[in-house]
Amino acid sequence: MERSVYLNGKMIGESEARISIFDVGRLYGATFYESIRTFGHKLFHVEQHLERLRRSLSYAGILEQLEWSRVEEAVAQTLAANEKLIDAEDDMWLCVEVTPGTTFPMPLQKQVDTTPTVFAYSAALPHGEYARCYTEGKAVVTSLYRHIPPQCFEQRCKHRSRLPHFLSKLDAKRVDPDAFAVMLDIDGFITEGTGANIFFVVDGMLMTPKTRNILVGISRQYAIELAAGLGIPVQERDITLYDAYNAEEAFWTTSSYCILPICRMDGRKVGQQYPGKVAGALLREWSRKVGVDIVAQAQRFAAESSRD
Amino acid sequence: MERSVYLNGKMIGESEARISIFDVGRLYGATFYESIRTFGHKLFHVEQHLERLRRSLSYAGILEQLEWSRVEEAVAQTLAANEKLIDAEDDMWLCVEVTPGTTFPMPLQKQVDTTPTVFAYSAALPHGEYARCYTEGKAVVTSLYRHIPPQCFEQRCKHRSRLPHFLSKLDAKRVDPDAFAVMLDIDGFITEGTGANIFFVVDGMLMTPKTRNILVGISRQYAIELAAGLGIPVQERDITLYDAYNAEEAFWTTSSYCILPICRMDGRKVGQQYPGKVAGALLREWSRKVGVDIVAQAQRFAAESSRD
Amino acid sequence: MERSVYLNGKMIGESEARISIFDVGRLYGATFYESIRTFGHKLFHVEQHLERLRRSLSYAGILEQLEWSRVEEAVAQTLAANEKLIDAEDDMWLCVEVTPGTTFPMPLQKQVDTTPTVFAYSAALPHGEYARCYTEGKAVVTSLYRHIPPQCFEQRCKHRSRLPHFLSKLDAKRVDPDAFAVMLDIDGFITEGTGANIFFVVDGMLMTPKTRNILVGISRQYAIELAAGLGIPVQERDITLYDAYNAEEAFWTTSSYCILPICRMDGRKVGQQYPGKVAGALLREWSRKVGVDIVAQAQRFAAESSRD
Amino acid sequence: MERSVYLNGKMIGESEARISIFDVGRLYGATFYESIRTFGHKLFHVEQHLERLRRSLSYAGILEQLEWSRVEEAVAQTLAANEKLIDAEDDMWLCVEVTPGTTFPMPLQKQVDTTPTVFAYSAALPHGEYARCYTEGKAVVTSLYRHIPPQCFEQRCKHRSRLPHFLSKLDAKRVDPDAFAVMLDIDGFITEGTGANIFFVVDGMLMTPKTRNILVGISRQYAIELAAGLGIPVQERDITLYDAYNAEEAFWTTSSYCILPICRMDGRKVGQQYPGKVAGALLREWSRKVGVDIVAQAQRFAAESSRD
Amino acid sequence: MERSVYLNGKMIGESEARISIFDVGRLYGATFYESIRTFGHKLFHVEQHLERLRRSLSYAGILEQLEWSRVEEAVAQTLAANEKLIDAEDDMWLCVEVTPGTTFPMPLQKQVDTTPTVFAYSAALPHGEYARCYTEGKAVVTSLYRHIPPQCFEQRCKHRSRLPHFLSKLDAKRVDPDAFAVMLDIDGFITEGTGANIFFVVDGMLMTPKTRNILVGISRQYAIELAAGLGIPVQERDITLYDAYNAEEAFWTTSSYCILPICRMDGRKVGQQYPGKVAGALLREWSRKVGVDIVAQAQRFAAESSRD
Amino acid sequence: MERSVYLNGKMIGESEARISIFDVGRLYGATFYESIRTFGHKLFHVEQHLERLRRSLSYAGILEQLEWSRVEEAVAQTLAANEKLIDAEDDMWLCVEVTPGTTFPMPLQKQVDTTPTVFAYSAALPHGEYARCYTEGKAVVTSLYRHIPPQCFEQRCKHRSRLPHFLSKLDAKRVDPDAFAVMLDIDGFITEGTGANIFFVVDGMLMTPKTRNILVGISRQYAIELAAGLGIPVQERDITLYDAYNAEEAFWTTSSYCILPICRMDGRKVGQQYPGKVAGALLREWSRKVGVDIVAQAQRFAAESSRD
Repeated sequence: MERSVYLNGKMIGESEARISIFDVGRLYGATFYESIRTFGHKLFHVEQHLERLRRSLSYAGILEQLEWSRVEEAVAQTLAANEKLIDAEDDMWLCVEVTPGTTFPMPLQKQVDTTPTVFAYSAALPHGEYARCYTEGKAVVTSLYRHIPPQCFEQRCKHRSRLPHFLSKLDAKRVDPDAFAVMLDIDGFITEGTGANIFFVVDGMLMTPKTRNILVGISRQYAIELAAGLGIPVQERDITLYDAYNAEEAFWTTSSYCILPICRMDGRKVGQQYPGKVAGALLREWSRKVGVDIVAQAQRFAAESSRD
Repeated sequence: MERSVYLNGKMIGESEARISIFDVGRLYGATFYESIRTFGHKLFHVEQHLERLRRSLSYAGILEQLEWSRVEEAVAQTLAANEKLIDAEDDMWLCVEVTPGTTFPMPLQKQVDTTPTVFAYSAALPHGEYARCYTEGKAVVTSLYRHIPPQCFEQRCKHRSRLPHFLSKLDAKRVDPDAFAVMLDIDGFITEGTGANIFFVVDGMLMTPKTRNILVGISRQYAIELAAGLGIPVQERDITLYDAYNAEEAFWTTSSYCILPICRMDGRKVGQQYPGKVAGALLREWSRKVGVDIVAQAQRFAAESSRD
Repeated sequence: MERSVYLNGKMIGESEARISIFDVGRLYGATFYESIRTFGHKLFHVEQHLERLRRSLSYAGILEQLEWSRVEEAVAQTLAANEKLIDAEDDMWLCVEVTPGTTFPMPLQKQVDTTPTVFAYSAALPHGEYARCYTEGKAVVTSLYRHIPPQCFEQRCKHRSRLPHFLSKLDAKRVDPDAFAVMLDIDGFITEGTGANIFFVVDGMLMTPKTRNILVGISRQYAIELAAGLGIPVQERDITLYDAYNAEEAFWTTSSYCILPICRMDGRKVGQQYPGKVAGALLREWSRKVGVDIVAQAQRFAAESSRD
Repeated sequence: MERSVYLNGKMIGESEARISIFDVGRLYGATFYESIRTFGHKLFHVEQHLERLRRSLSYAGILEQLEWSRVEEAVAQTLAANEKLIDAEDDMWLCVEVTPGTTFPMPLQKQVDTTPTVFAYSAALPHGEYARCYTEGKAVVTSLYRHIPPQCFEQRCKHRSRLPHFLSKLDAKRVDPDAFAVMLDIDGFITEGTGANIFFVVDGMLMTPKTRNILVGISRQYAIELAAGLGIPVQERDITLYDAYNAEEAFWTTSSYCILPICRMDGRKVGQQYPGKVAGALLREWSRKVGVDIVAQAQRFAAESSRD
Repeated sequence: MERSVYLNGKMIGESEARISIFDVGRLYGATFYESIRTFGHKLFHVEQHLERLRRSLSYAGILEQLEWSRVEEAVAQTLAANEKLIDAEDDMWLCVEVTPGTTFPMPLQKQVDTTPTVFAYSAALPHGEYARCYTEGKAVVTSLYRHIPPQCFEQRCKHRSRLPHFLSKLDAKRVDPDAFAVMLDIDGFITEGTGANIFFVVDGMLMTPKTRNILVGISRQYAIELAAGLGIPVQERDITLYDAYNAEEAFWTTSSYCILPICRMDGRKVGQQYPGKVAGALLREWSRKVGVDIVAQAQRFAAESSRD
Repeated sequence: MERSVYLNGKMIGESEARISIFDVGRLYGATFYESIRTFGHKLFHVEQHLERLRRSLSYAGILEQLEWSRVEEAVAQTLAANEKLIDAEDDMWLCVEVTPGTTFPMPLQKQVDTTPTVFAYSAALPHGEYARCYTEGKAVVTSLYRHIPPQCFEQRCKHRSRLPHFLSKLDAKRVDPDAFAVMLDIDGFITEGTGANIFFVVDGMLMTPKTRNILVGISRQYAIELAAGLGIPVQERDITLYDAYNAEEAFWTTSSYCILPICRMDGRKVGQQYPGKVAGALLREWSRKVGVDIVAQAQRFAAESSRD
C-alpha cells in the first residue's frame, strides 16, 4: 500500500507525486523545506521546524506570498494519511516543502503564477542505513568542496540548492563507500555533514561548530540542551581537523537517527567505544524524554526498512 | 496549440511536463542544463552548448551513468516538434536538462534509480521583455549576495542550485523594478548577472570578468570573438564598480537577446547612447553572421511574445 | 545668536571656524575626535569619551605630541560658552577634535608645525531628524561598501577618514531616501551604521556585532550595561542579514538619540511595534538614570531643531 | 612674497587659506583631488589628471552637483597667479581639490549647502627632499598597515581618507627615519607607497603591481609608456616581497620627482647603482620628452627648496 | 663536563649528537617535539607536554608507528643523566623530539626505514637572556610574516617547519636588536611569538589570542589557570594592534622563563612598571606553587648561564 | 660501494653523513636547497638552480653570511666523487643544501656559530618509481592541506619547512596508495604537487598555475620554453579542479623524471593515452635537446634502481 503525498491541497499517491518542470523551486533550487520525525507517532519539535521554515521564507523574501495555513494543513494531512502505514512501535519521517510557484510557460524570465507550491510527504525511517552504526560507528571523510559562506547566501535557511552536498556525498563515497562527508568552510573550519550536524568531545568538553555557516539543526539544539541538563560542558567554537583527529569522541546529530557515533575521520580512528560515553548518555536521555528507545527501535526495524 | 516537451524518451504536452518530487535533481539542485536559441530555426552553437553540458556532468562525476545519445535525441526531437509553432521570421529557445535520476521512495538516503532523467523543452524568445532595451538600455543593480567562490563549487558548471541568483533577482527588483542584478565575488569583483555575462568599455578597451567564477557564456565567447574580428581590443580582467560606474559603455550578453545595452548602474548613468558604439557594432556583426537582424526581429515580435 | 567654537585656545564664532587647508588632519583624514551629548546640561560619559580619544591618538602614535590639558580646556570652554544658548529642558551636542598640526607651506612632504590642532564646537541635538522614529522606526539599507578590516586600520580608533561612510550614506539614500546605511565586513557580517551601533533581538537574546571591526560606541556599552541590569541576556557575536531579517526587534544606539528603533531592513519589515519591548525598556531605564525623558525631550524640541 | 590660493572663485594669500570645520570634505575625508607638476612652467598631463578627478567624483556620486568649469578655472588661475614666483629654470606643483560642500551649522546630520567647495594651491617642488636620492637611492620599509581592498572603497579614486597612509609614514619613520613606506594588500601583495607607485626589474622584466587596489598614477602610466617606447618589457602583476628583495632594480614614480631609485628594502640592499639601468634610461627619456633635465633641475634647486 | 643526549636508545655526548641528513624529520621539517623545564629538578607539567606530543603525532598520522615507551625512556634517561650537572638551586630545560625515521639512501622518493627517530637533550635555562627583562620588560616588534592559517596546517601541532618563525626573528632583530617578534594571522589578529604566547591586560581584563592558530602553550594554560585562581578575569579573543598599543600591561609566557613583561610594542611604550600588576601577581603565585622563586633564580644564575 | 657526501668541506661516506641536532636548519626547517639531475653525466640547468638558491638565501636574509664558493665547491666535488658510480648510460641526482649554521649548545635562544652549514649528496635516479608511469600515467589526489600563502612565507624560496607536503603525501597515500598529492591554495586554486609542478591541456591550450604561490620549477620553465618552441600555446593562470577534471591531458614536471603523464584526478579519468599528445611531444623534444632518451633510460634502469 502506497504512501500519500500532499500537493497543493490534494492527497495523491506517492508514485504520482510530480511537480512542473517550470516550477521556480526546481529552476532555481529555490525550494525551502523541513524534515521532521515522529516519536510515538507524534511529530517531534514540530513548532521549531515550522518556525525555521518561516524564517527561511522570510530570509528569501517570499513569506508574504504564502498563506501560512497551507503549510500547517500539509503537515497535518500528510501525518494523518500515512501514520497508519507505520508499525505501532515504529516511527516515520515527514517532509514539507515550499517553492515560489510556477513560471509558465516561459522559464527564467517572468513568473506568471506566484502562488507558492506547497507539498508534503512521509517516508519510513531509514533504520537499515544506520542501525549498526550506533554500536560500530560511522566513518567520515572530509570533503574537497568548501561550504558556502554566509555572505553568498545563508546556510541557516534550509533550501534545495544543495549541489555542494551532492558533490561531497559522491566524493566521500569514492574515498570510502561507507563514509559520510563533512565539509569545511573557506577558512578551513569544520561546518557540518551533508544533512547532519557534528559534535566532538575534546578534553571532556562537548564542542560543535558555531552557527555561522551551518544549518542550525533542531536536533543539534536538542543535543546541546540535553547535554547541559546532564551537566556536560558544551561549547560552540571554531573546530579544525586537529580537534577532530584528536577527539575522545565524535558523533552526528540529525532528525532521523538523532545521534550517530563516528568511528573514523580521514582514516584515523576516533573514539574507543560506540556509542562513546557522551553519545551514549545523550541517546539514553533522549530516549527517556521521548519515551522511545531510539537504538532498540532502529535495530528492531532495520531489516524491514532495508527492504523498503 | 501547446508546445511539446521531451521527457525520458517521450514527447508530451508542456502542461503535462512534470518530474517526481523525489528526483535527485530537485532534491539537491543537482540538475545540469543548457539553454540554446535558434537563428533561422537552426540551433546556434549547439556543439559548444553540448560540450559544456558534458563538462558539467563530468565535473559532477555522473557523466558515465548517462547514455549520451539521449541528450542528442532530446534536443533533436524537441526542436523538431516545436519549430513549426514558430513564425518563419521568428526564432525559439530550447533547454535541455539532466538529473542524476530518482531516489524513490526514500529521499536523502539512498538512490534507487541512478538512470539520469533527461528532458528538453522549448519556449518563445521573450522579445517583449527586452526589445525596447536595445535602444533604451537596461538598468543594473549590484546584488547584496556574493557569487559562490570556485572552491565551494564551480560556477563554470551550469546547474540549478541557483538560489543566490533567485535572491539577487528579488533583491534587485526591490531597489529598481526594471533592473537586472549583477553579483560581486567575495573579493568584491564583478562576476556576472543572474543569467548573463557583463561587458564594459573603458578607455576604448572592451573588458569582461575573468572566467574564474562565472558561467563562461557561449555568447560571451562569441562576443569576444566578434570584437577581435572587428579590431576592438578585449581583455578578461578583475573589474570593480569603479570601472563600471566610469565605463563609456556597458552591456550584457546571453543566448536569447545576444547583446543588451546597459544604461544605469546603481543609479549612475552609464553610456551616452543605446546601443553604444561597441555594442552596436557587435549586434550588427552578429546579425550579419547569423543572417537575422537581431534587433529588428525582437522589435517585430515583441508584442506577440508579451502576450505569451 | 551664534554658537562659539574653541580653536587652538581661542573662542570664536561658529561662522568663523576654519582650519588651514594645509592641516595634516585634512590632508590625510588624520583627525581624531569625539562627539558627546549632555543630559541636564551635563556632559554624559565624558571620561569614557576622552579615554577613547586618548587611545585613538595613542594608536596613531601622536599622543606624546599633545598637551592633554588642551583637550580638557577645549571641552570645558566650549560647554561653558554654548550651554546658555540651549533651553533649560533641552540638551546639546559637543565635538572635540585633534589633528597632527599644520604642514605649511608644502603639503605632503614634510610637516613644519607638529603642534596638534585642537578644536571643539557644539550643536543643537538634531531632534527633528529622529523624533518621529522613536514611534515609527527607521529604515535600514545594507551598503554595497564593506567596512574596512582591522588589518588595514583599526575602526575602534575614531577618525575622519570616513569616505566609505559618506559613500554608504549616499548609496542608501539612493535606494530609500529615509534610510540609514548599515555596513557589512569583508566576511559579510554586520558591523555598524555610518555613525551608530546596531542591535538585534533574536529569540529573546539581545545581540550586537563583536568589537572586532566597529567603533565601540560609548552608548553601545551603556545599552549593554542597562540591558544586563534589566535582566535581558546580551551577546556580542557574528551577525548576518539572516539574523537581521528575522529579528524580533532591531535598533540603533548613538550618543545623540541614544536608542532608535528600526522598522525595515532591505525592504523587509522588522519588529511589530516601535519602540519594541527591549528598546522601550532601555529608553525608559536610560531616561530614568539620566533624569531626562529622552523621547519626550526629542518630541518637544523637534520642531525647533528642524528650523535650525 | 606669498603664494596665492584659489578658494571658491577667489584668489587669497596662502596663509589665509582655510576651510570651514563643517566642510563635508573634512568631516568625512570626502575630498577628491589631483596633484600636477609643471615642466617648463606648463602643467604636465593636465587632461589626464582632470579626467581622473572627474572619475573620482563620478565614483563618489557627486559629479552632477559640480559645475565643472570651476575646476578648470581653479587650475588656470592658480597657475597664472603663482607661476611668476618660480625661477624660470625651476618648476612648481599644483593641487586642485573638491569637497561635497559645507554642512552648516550641524555636522553629521544633514547637509545644508551642497555646492561643492573647490580650491587649488601651488607649492615649490620639494627638490631638497629627494635630489640626492637620484644618485644614492631611497630606503623602503614595508608597512604593518594593509592597503584597503577595493570592495571597501576603491583606491583608484584619489581621496583624502588617507589615514592608513599617514600611519604607514609614521611607522616607516620609526624603523628607518629616511625611508618611504610601501603597503601590502590583504593578500600580501605589494600595492604602492603613501603617494607613489613602485616598480621592480626582475630578470630584465620591468614589473609593477596591477591596478586592482592602487591609485593608478599618471606618472606610472607614463613610465610604462616610456619603457615600451624604449623596448623594455613591462608587466602588471602580483608582486611579493620575494620579488622585491631579489630585484635587480627598484624605483618609485610620482608626479613631483618622476622616478626615484630605491636602494634598500626592509634592510636588504636592492640594486647595484643609482639610478639603475632602467630607471636611468627612463629619467633620460622623460627629460628629453619634456625638455627639462629632471635630475639636474632637482640638484640645482635642492638647496633653495630646502630653505622653503 | 659535557651534557648527555639520548638518541634512539643510547646516551651520547652532546657534541656527538647528530642525525642523518636523510632523516625525514630534517628533509620535510616533519619533526615533532616538546620543551619542558624543571622546578626543583622535577619536570614541570610533563604529562601535559607528552599528551601534546601524542596529539601532534596523531594529527600527522604517524602515531601508530611509534613505540610510545621510547619517548618516556628518552625523557627519563635524559633527565637522569643531566640533572646532576645543574646547581641544586638552579633548574634545566629538556627537549624530546620524534621524526618519521630515515629515508636511506634515496631522499624524497620512498622511505626505507619507517622506525621513528627519537632523541632528547637538555640545556641550561638561558637566564642570562631574560633575567633583566623581569624588571625592565622586553621589546616587541610585529613581524611582516603572517602566521600560517590552520587550513594549511595546524599550528597546535608542535613541529619544526618553523621557517616563518626564523624569518620573523631575523626581521625583528633588524628593527630592534633586543626585541622578540610577534606574528599576526592572515586576518591581522595577533597570534603568538616565535616560541611564546602573548597576554594583554585591557580595562582590567587579561586577554590572550584564541587557540585557533597558535601553539597552545602549557604555560599559557597555566597562566590562565593561575589568573582564574587569583580572581583576575581572563578572556580568549581576537586581539589587534589597537589592543596591544593601548594595553595597561602585556607579557609573554613560555616554559623557560614562565612570564616575561613587555615594555614596548612597535616603538610605543606599553605598561608603566615591570612586572606589571597582573604579571607580578602571576609570577609570585607561580613561584609559590612550584616552590622556586622564578625571578630570583633567574637573576642569581644569569651571569653563569651567559657564560655557557 | 658507497656514495660520497660533501659536508662543510669534507667528503665522507653516505652512511656517515650526519648533522648536529642543534643545527638551525633542523631546528627551524630553515634549510635552503636545490635538487639537480644530470644528462650524460653533466648537471642540467645548474646555473639556474644555483641562482634560485642564491635568491632563497637572499629572501631569508642570510646570503651575506655565506662564502658562495663553498656552494660551488660542494656541487663540483659531489659530482666528481659520485659520477663514476653511475652507469655510462644512466644519470644521477645531486642535492646541495645550506643552513644558517649551528646553535650550540643551547637551542632556540642564541646562535653561537653563524657559519652556514653546507652539504651536498647524490642519489640514483628513482627510475623504478616512475618508469611505467610514462606509458600508464600517474594518479593524483587533491590534498586536504592548503598550500601556504605567500604572505606567510614565500614558496618560491626552496626550503625544508615542508610539513604540509609530508602530510599531503601521507594523506594521498591513504586515499590511493599509488597517487601523488596536489595542493590547492587558500582560494581553492591548484598550486603544485609535493615536489613537482603540474600542467593541464584544455581546449588545446597548455596551462599551469601562476608563480604566485608555488616553487617555480626549473623544469616547469623548461617545459614552457619547449612548448613555445613547438608552437604549443601556453598560459600561466588560475586553475581549478573543474579545469583539471575536464582536461584533455595533464602531467607533472620535475627535475628527476622531467615530464610524467597523469591518468586520474580524484577518481576521474584524465586523458586518453599516456603520454598524451603534448606530453609526448615535450618528452621527445627534451630528449632530443639533452641527447638522452628520457623514457628509454628510465625503462632500462628501472629494475636496477628499484633494487637500490
